[in-house]
Amino acid sequence: MNAVLRTQCANALRALAMDAVQAANSGHPGMPMGMADIAETLWRHHLKHDPADPQWIDRDRFVLSNGHGSMLLYALLHLSGYELPIDELKRFRQLHSKTPGHPEVDVTPGVETTTGPLGQGIANAVGMALAEKLLAAEFNRPGFEVVDHRTWVFLGDGCLMEGLSHEACSLAGTWGLNKLVAFWDDNGISIDGEVKGWFGDDTPARFEAYGWRVIRGLNGHDVAALDAAIAEAKASADRPVLVCCRTRIGHGSPNRAGTAKAHGEALGHEEIALTRAALGWTAAPFEIPADVAAAWSARAQGAELHAAWQARHARYAEAHPQLARELQRRTQRPMPLLPRTEAALTEAIADAEAKRASVATRKASQDVLQRIGPATPELLGGSADLTGSNLTDWKGHVPLKGCDVGNHVHYGVREFGMAAIMNGVALHGGFRPFGGTFLTFSDYARNAVRMSALMKLPVTYVFTHDSIGLGEDGPTHQPIEHVSSLRLIPGVDVWRPADATETAVAWREALHRGDGPSCLALTRQALPHAGDGGHRVDAIARGGYVLRHAADERLCLIASGSEVGLALAAAELLSAQGIAARVVSMPCMDAFERQDASYRRDVIPRRLPRLAIEAGSTGLWWKHVGEDGAVIGLDRFGESAPAGELFKLFGFTPKAVAERALSLLQETSSCP
Amino acid sequence: MNAVLRTQCANALRALAMDAVQAANSGHPGMPMGMADIAETLWRHHLKHDPADPQWIDRDRFVLSNGHGSMLLYALLHLSGYELPIDELKRFRQLHSKTPGHPEVDVTPGVETTTGPLGQGIANAVGMALAEKLLAAEFNRPGFEVVDHRTWVFLGDGCLMEGLSHEACSLAGTWGLNKLVAFWDDNGISIDGEVKGWFGDDTPARFEAYGWRVIRGLNGHDVAALDAAIAEAKASADRPVLVCCRTRIGHGSPNRAGTAKAHGEALGHEEIALTRAALGWTAAPFEIPADVAAAWSARAQGAELHAAWQARHARYAEAHPQLARELQRRTQRPMPLLPRTEAALTEAIADAEAKRASVATRKASQDVLQRIGPATPELLGGSADLTGSNLTDWKGHVPLKGCDVGNHVHYGVREFGMAAIMNGVALHGGFRPFGGTFLTFSDYARNAVRMSALMKLPVTYVFTHDSIGLGEDGPTHQPIEHVSSLRLIPGVDVWRPADATETAVAWREALHRGDGPSCLALTRQALPHAGDGGHRVDAIARGGYVLRHAADERLCLIASGSEVGLALAAAELLSAQGIAARVVSMPCMDAFERQDASYRRDVIPRRLPRLAIEAGSTGLWWKHVGEDGAVIGLDRFGESAPAGELFKLFGFTPKAVAERALSLLQETSSCP
Repeated sequence: MNAVLRTQCANALRALAMDAVQAANSGHPGMPMGMADIAETLWRHHLKHDPADPQWIDRDRFVLSNGHGSMLLYALLHLSGYELPIDELKRFRQLHSKTPGHPEVDVTPGVETTTGPLGQGIANAVGMALAEKLLAAEFNRPGFEVVDHRTWVFLGDGCLMEGLSHEACSLAGTWGLNKLVAFWDDNGISIDGEVKGWFGDDTPARFEAYGWRVIRGLNGHDVAALDAAIAEAKASADRPVLVCCRTRIGHGSPNRAGTAKAHGEALGHEEIALTRAALGWTAAPFEIPADVAAAWSARAQGAELHAAWQARHARYAEAHPQLARELQRRTQRPMPLLPRTEAALTEAIADAEAKRASVATRKASQDVLQRIGPATPELLGGSADLTGSNLTDWKGHVPLKGCDVGNHVHYGVREFGMAAIMNGVALHGGFRPFGGTFLTFSDYARNAVRMSALMKLPVTYVFTHDSIGLGEDGPTHQPIEHVSSLRLIPGVDVWRPADATETAVAWREALHRGDGPSCLALTRQALPHAGDGGHRVDAIARGGYVLRHAADERLCLIASGSEVGLALAAAELLSAQGIAARVVSMPCMDAFERQDASYRRDVIPRRLPRLAIEAGSTGLWWKHVGEDGAVIGLDRFGESAPAGELFKLFGFTPKAVAERALSLLQETSSCP
Repeated sequence: MNAVLRTQCANALRALAMDAVQAANSGHPGMPMGMADIAETLWRHHLKHDPADPQWIDRDRFVLSNGHGSMLLYALLHLSGYELPIDELKRFRQLHSKTPGHPEVDVTPGVETTTGPLGQGIANAVGMALAEKLLAAEFNRPGFEVVDHRTWVFLGDGCLMEGLSHEACSLAGTWGLNKLVAFWDDNGISIDGEVKGWFGDDTPARFEAYGWRVIRGLNGHDVAALDAAIAEAKASADRPVLVCCRTRIGHGSPNRAGTAKAHGEALGHEEIALTRAALGWTAAPFEIPADVAAAWSARAQGAELHAAWQARHARYAEAHPQLARELQRRTQRPMPLLPRTEAALTEAIADAEAKRASVATRKASQDVLQRIGPATPELLGGSADLTGSNLTDWKGHVPLKGCDVGNHVHYGVREFGMAAIMNGVALHGGFRPFGGTFLTFSDYARNAVRMSALMKLPVTYVFTHDSIGLGEDGPTHQPIEHVSSLRLIPGVDVWRPADATETAVAWREALHRGDGPSCLALTRQALPHAGDGGHRVDAIARGGYVLRHAADERLCLIASGSEVGLALAAAELLSAQGIAARVVSMPCMDAFERQDASYRRDVIPRRLPRLAIEAGSTGLWWKHVGEDGAVIGLDRFGESAPAGELFKLFGFTPKAVAERALSLLQETSSCP
C-alpha cells in the first residue's frame, strides 16, 4: 500500500511535468519523469523544510543543477504546499508566471537559486554548504545547534561534463563538505543522444579522486534503495556524497523513455495518453487525487520541524542573546552593515583623501580591507590563487582551513568556481563574499558574474591588473575589452577608481549595494592622488563628477582609473597653452548613467568638445563624447613590455592626450 | 659522463631562465628550473622536430600549457637551434622582442600556441592531437605514413585545477588520443603556497577515470626514469598518457626551491650566485659552454628526421599525387578554399537571394552547410551538445567516432573545451573548425574566443538563439549583452545576419577570413527575407549597407539581424504617414567600422536623425546614431515567455519603432 502510494506520488510529479510542458508546448519533461522517484524519496522522506516559510534560515537547501527540469521542482513545491498554486503550473513558461522556463530565485517561493547554465547549480550548492559550515562553526554552541542543515543537489550528465563541476567538486572534496549530497541522474542521454560517444568518464572514480564518498550503481527508480542511500549519505562525517542513480529519461513514456527525444519537447497528446495508461495515472491534467495530495503535503511536518527549531532557537537566544542578535542580522536580506563597518568605511575614505598617497588601487583596496576586515565578521574574502597580487587579504585574516573556520578562501586556480561558489554563499546568507583574480580572467568567470546580476546578489569581484599597466605578462594577461564588456552585463556595477579615495568609495558602494554585484577594476601600478581634500566624496558615488573645474573652459576631458591622472596632467599642459579644460572622473559609468539627465549634463556639458581617455575598448564612450568628440583608447591587443613603455607606445601620455585635445578643438571649430 | 652532460644541459635551461628573468626583473624562474630535467629528456632524446623548419607539417607539437614558464621554452628553442638568438633571450619581456612574457605563436619560431591563460594549452593540445589523428586517417596510405607525429604537453597544478582541463582531458580519453602525452609538473606549489589546502585531488585517479594511461609517481629529476616513462608513453596504443612527475619548483636554488617565492619573481643576484654554485654552473650569464651548446643543437638530427620524412613524402607524392596536392593545400597557411567550395558559397548566396524564404538564420546557416559541407573536406564542424538546435550538421555529415573518422564533433556540454580544442585544430592545420552553442553560453567559452582572435585563427563560432527570440527558456538563456561584448574583443568579426542571404554571405566571409575568428549570431525564429534580388550581396560583406532607400529621406533606421525586418516594417508604417525613412542593415559592425569614412557616411548620413534597433545592449550604437539619435535595445535581462510576447513587451514592434522614430523627429526638429 505504502509502495503503491509512493509510486503514485512520484507519478504525480511525472503527470504535472508532462501536462505543464504540453500546455506550454515547450519545456523538458524527460528529466522530471526520470528523477521523480528520487525526488519523491528525498522530498517526502528526508528534506527538512517548511513550505509556509521558504526563508527559514535552518531549512535544507535543494538545488536543481539540471535546471531545465524545472517542472520537477515546480511540481514538488506545489505538492509540498508552497505558495505555488496549480494555476501557476498551468501557466508554465508564460509571461510573468511564477513558473519560468528555468527556476529563478525570488520569482518562485522555495527556489533557492537560478539554474539552467549547466554546472553552476552544483557550484552554488558548494557555496551554500560552505556557508552552512562556517555559519554553524561561528554561531552554534554546545546543545544549541541553530545552524544545522544540508544541501541537496540534483544534477545530470551536462553538469558533470562542464568544467565548472570539476572546479567546484574538487573544492568540496578538499573542504570535506559532508553535508552536501548530490544525486547524479545517470540516464546515459544528453541532447545529442547517447552520451557514451562524448562522455566516457568513470564518474564515480572521478568523484572518489576528489575525496567524495560515492554511492555507486543505484537504481534510481528503487525507492527502498534510495532511502538506504540517503541514510548512508547523511552518516558521512567528513566527505560530500555523490549518489549515482541509474534512471530512464522520460520514465513511464512507452515510446520516448530512454531517448533524447524525451529531453526537451512536449510528449504530445497521444504519447501522454499512452504514458498515463502505462503509469496507471487516471487523473485529468493538472488534477491530483486527494490521497496523493494529502500524502504530498509537507505543511504539517514542516511546521513541526520549524517549531522544534524555533524552540531551540528561543533557548539559544536566551543563553546567547548577542549571538542570536548577530545571527539575525547576518541572515537578514539585505544584510545591514554594522555601525563599526560603516565607521571603518568612512575612516578609510577620509584617510585616503587626507593622505593623498600615490598608490596602486589594488593596494588602496587592501588598505580598505585592513580597516573593514577586522570590523566586519560577515566578510568572506578570497582569491583564485592570486592573493598576493589581488591583495584580497588583510593583516589578521584567517585562511580557510578545511571548512570550519576562516574568512579568506584560497579558491585555487578556479575563477569560474570561485564566482559560482560566491553566488552560493550569498544565496545561503550569513556572509558577504568577495573574491579576486586578474581582470582578464573575469572571462573565465563571466557567466557566473552574469548570474550574480540576474539573481541580484551582493557579490564583490576584485579584478586587479586592469589594463596594459599589467606590463610584461603580455597580451594574454592584459585586459582590453573587459571593463567595457562587464559594464554591458545588466545590473553589474563596474568601478574603475582613479586613486585611493575613489577605491574606498567604490568599496563602500559595493558593500551598500544589497541587490547586485560590483566589480572593482584595480591597477597593478601606483596612481597619483587625484583629489582636492574631500569635497568630492559624495560626487564619486554618483559614478562621474567634475574633478577639475576651470574658468572659460574650452573642452572636457573624461577618464576613468589610471587615465584620470593622465587627463589631469594633460589639462595642465593645455592650461600652459592658455586652454582651459575641465576634467571629469568617471569611476563607474553604470552609476553615472543612473543619474538624472540634468546632473549628467552638468558634469559633461554638451557645449564643450569632449575627449574620453581609457586604456581599453573605446566603443562605450561615444555615448558620452558625442560623434564630434574623440576617444583615446585601445581596440587592439597589448604587448609584452614594461608598463611605462606600453602607455607611451599606445599614446597614453600627457603630451599625446593634449595634442589630441588640441586637434579636437581645431576639428570642432572648423565644423559647422 | 653522459649523465654529467645531461645534467649540465638541464642546468643550461635553469641558468638561462634565471638570467633572463633577472635581466627583465620580471618573470617566472621556478617552473623552468623545476621542469628542466623533463625538458632535457624530451627535447634532446625524443622530440621529433627540425629547428630549421618550424612549419614542417609532420613535426611533433610541443605545448607549454603552464605558459608562465615561457623562459623554459625560449631556452629550449634557442639551444636546439631555432631562429632565436641569445640577444632575444636577453630582451626577455621587452617591447617587440621575440621573447614575450608568455609564449606567443607567430612571434617566436617554434612556439606552437599562445599560452598563459591556464588550462587552454592542454585543450589546444587535445585539438592538435585530434587533428593529427584525423589527418593521418585521411591522408596516410599503407607504407606512406606522411602524418605521424605526437603532441607533448607540459602542465602544472594550475591547468589541472581549471575546469577546462576536465572538459578537454575527458574528451581526449573518450577519443583515445594515444599520441597525446602530458607531463604533470607535480611540485605541490601554486602562487598562494602549498596546494594541499586547495587542491586535494588524486590526479592520477582522476585521469584514469577519463580513460588515460597514467604513469605515476616519477621523480621529475631522474632522467633515466623519465626516459623509460616516455618509452612507455610512446607505446600507448589507445589512450592518452599522463606522466606524473614530482619536481621541486626552482630546483637548484638553495633558498627558494620548493617555495611559492620561486614561482613568479627574479631570484636576485645573490640567490642566483648561490644557485650557480649549487648547480656547479660556472658560465657567465647568457653564456653556454661549447660542449653543452653542441650537445643541445638539434639541427643535424632535425635535418636527418626531416629528410627522411621528405623522402617518404616524395614517394607518397609519386604514388598518390592527388592526395599529396590536397595535403599540401590543407596544410598551407592560410588554407586556400577549393574552387568547388567557392562555387558552393556563391550558389548558396544566389539561392538564398532568389528564394526569398522566411527562415530562421540558424536554418539558413544549415542550408549553407548543406551546400559547402560535401564540397569542403577541411570542414570540421561540431556542437556543444546542441546539434539539433545549432543546426551545425548537414545531410551526409559523419559524426566523429573515436577519433579516426568524422567531420562533425559531438563535444558534449563543454563550450570552453570546444572552443579551445578548435583553436588547437586550427593551429595544427589541415582543418577549418567550426562549432556551435547557444549565444548566451559564449560566456563559458569567452577567453578561448579571445585566444582565437589573439592567435589570428580562422575559427567559426555558430552562436544560435541570439536574443530574447529564444523565448520560453528565459533570462538564463537569453543573450542581452553578448553580441556587443563579442564585438568588443579585438579581431573578432561578429555577424548577426538579417536573413538567409546575409547568413550565406556571413559564412563566405568567415571562410574567406584566414586571420581571425568569426562569430555568427543566429536566430531561433524565422525571419522574413529582407532583400531585393541580389544587388546587395557585395554590400553585405562591407558590414553595413543601405537596404531601403527613399526619396526625401527624413530619418535613418539602422538595425541588425532580427530587427532588420522590424525596421523595414516600421519604415512602411512611417511611409504611410508620409515620412520617408532609409533602412540600413548592419550585419557586421566590425566590418562596417573597417570601411573608409566616406562609405560609412554614405550609408549613415549625419544629416539624418538616426534610430538604431537591436534586441540587445544599446551601448555600442551611440557611435553610429550620435547623441541626438536614439537606440531601441535591451539593457535589462529578459523574461521567460513565448518570443512573440517578449518582443511586444520590450517594444520591438513596427508600431513602437515607428512611434519612437516620430518622437525622434520631433525632438530633433525642436532642437537648435
